[in-house]
Amino acid sequence: MSGTMEAATSVGLEQIRSLLDGKSNYRGIAHKLDFKPVLADEGFVVFEGHPTEAVYNPIGTVHGGYAATLLDSAMGCAVHTLMKDGQGYTTLELKVAYHHAMTAESGTVRAEGKVISLGRRAAFAEGRLIDGKGRLCATATTTCLVFNK
Amino acid sequence: MSGTMEAATSVGLEQIRSLLDGKSNYRGIAHKLDFKPVLADEGFVVFEGHPTEAVYNPIGTVHGGYAATLLDSAMGCAVHTLMKDGQGYTTLELKVAYHHAMTAESGTVRAEGKVISLGRRAAFAEGRLIDGKGRLCATATTTCLVFNK
Amino acid sequence: MSGTMEAATSVGLEQIRSLLDGKSNYRGIAHKLDFKPVLADEGFVVFEGHPTEAVYNPIGTVHGGYAATLLDSAMGCAVHTLMKDGQGYTTLELKVAYHHAMTAESGTVRAEGKVISLGRRAAFAEGRLIDGKGRLCATATTTCLVFNK
Amino acid sequence: MSGTMEAATSVGLEQIRSLLDGKSNYRGIAHKLDFKPVLADEGFVVFEGHPTEAVYNPIGTVHGGYAATLLDSAMGCAVHTLMKDGQGYTTLELKVAYHHAMTAESGTVRAEGKVISLGRRAAFAEGRLIDGKGRLCATATTTCLVFNK
Repeated sequence: MSGTMEAATSVGLEQIRSLLDGKSNYRGIAHKLDFKPVLADEGFVVFEGHPTEAVYNPIGTVHGGYAATLLDSAMGCAVHTLMKDGQGYTTLELKVAYHHAMTAESGTVRAEGKVISLGRRAAFAEGRLIDGKGRLCATATTTCLVFNK
Repeated sequence: MSGTMEAATSVGLEQIRSLLDGKSNYRGIAHKLDFKPVLADEGFVVFEGHPTEAVYNPIGTVHGGYAATLLDSAMGCAVHTLMKDGQGYTTLELKVAYHHAMTAESGTVRAEGKVISLGRRAAFAEGRLIDGKGRLCATATTTCLVFNK
Repeated sequence: MSGTMEAATSVGLEQIRSLLDGKSNYRGIAHKLDFKPVLADEGFVVFEGHPTEAVYNPIGTVHGGYAATLLDSAMGCAVHTLMKDGQGYTTLELKVAYHHAMTAESGTVRAEGKVISLGRRAAFAEGRLIDGKGRLCATATTTCLVFNK
Repeated sequence: MSGTMEAATSVGLEQIRSLLDGKSNYRGIAHKLDFKPVLADEGFVVFEGHPTEAVYNPIGTVHGGYAATLLDSAMGCAVHTLMKDGQGYTTLELKVAYHHAMTAESGTVRAEGKVISLGRRAAFAEGRLIDGKGRLCATATTTCLVFNK
């Protein structure tokens, strides 16, 4: 990528890409629950995970918190990719709809986050989680606050 | 408690209490993220956790998925306590509002779930998460489907 | 349209189309707030309205309830188009995100509702409202209960 | 109320009280749908309405947009009562859960809005709508952006 184009890439996108490239020292919940970013572009980020019985609820399927965590990551990072130097964001609210239960047989699941609109003070994003067989397991929306640090 | 009163306790409440008493073999995400139920009554359940850097997001606070997971547990189990023999439930949607960020200094956090209304086919619950200093960190609502198994 | 094709059209879609054709005697809130359906297909319905100062809030823009009403109509009717003979539905919850304020200068606004997934007992739909200049004013999601009457 | 206490009343609360006292020239959707504020205190506002067939949906009950409109009013105005001189707010998102359908027999319905937390840049409120027989018809939450004008 040329120097000119690099200059045009937002600070936020660079940060998410360094997370994706494994250059970051971040461990945290992504390590704990075994999921990671696999794609990052302007306003669009994808995470992948491999749910097992280690993330089950007591009634024998993947806990709703698992999808919430991956979708919150994907949507929050999608907003992050659009942040300019000096801007920060925080998640105000997250909503997840559960369409199809995940199990240890779901395979590699893919959580996509996409920014729908970005203003000076707020951003809205939406997300969806697809299992290894292409089934829609969950959809989500989020509202983020955008501010100058 | 007399035999007669025990007979009046719903199947669902018995099940959640066995989870609480550690009599259940359930491991899953509660073990993974180190949280557990500490109180269960009819339509009301409390979970406690101790967030550390192991559940952080890349921007240095507890990941939003952590609160979502505890609140989903508390609200879902609160609905579970009201299930009669032959009834089942599933979470249709979960919404979490983030009021105050948690960190490793938040201490023991407490997620309370309470059923607001229960019909033949649907249940609504709400929740809140309070940190060790009594601060309101998150609130939540959920919609569950209720059905005959 | 041939008799064979008509037979394949769901009872629900027929009902929404009769609403659209003005064959229905329904007045209600659509008359009160001056909006109406303009397109109905399987799982997809569009309503149009013309907001004026008569639907303003006290702070000088179109009231948030106006978008909520049009989007609830579009999404609920989108679910309705998929109902078979003997099936009914009811809205469990509605969520609206406000991206851009509407005013009396917004022109003809268009609220689209689309079904995302339909199961035996629940349906999920999403919606968006676009103003006369093509701006995205609001997005929405809804959860509906589906049952046998 | 003494002059000293009046001086301590926020600009926002004064504004909502003038709306309540009918001193405002505001007409808009509250006039159109026949509802009005009946109580305003710091962080808490109540609206009342009298739903009739004029606000029905095509399936014979009060349209979901009616509850959304009253609850958005009550919660937004509750946030408004806490605004200081120079502060403004706007609704980012609104979520309504429908517990019990309203009809023309519901009598006078009461929508209460209460602020849950108020920060420098965001406010969260919750609401509930009770019919004339004391039944819980709907609950709601909202996220508002707070800014300096």
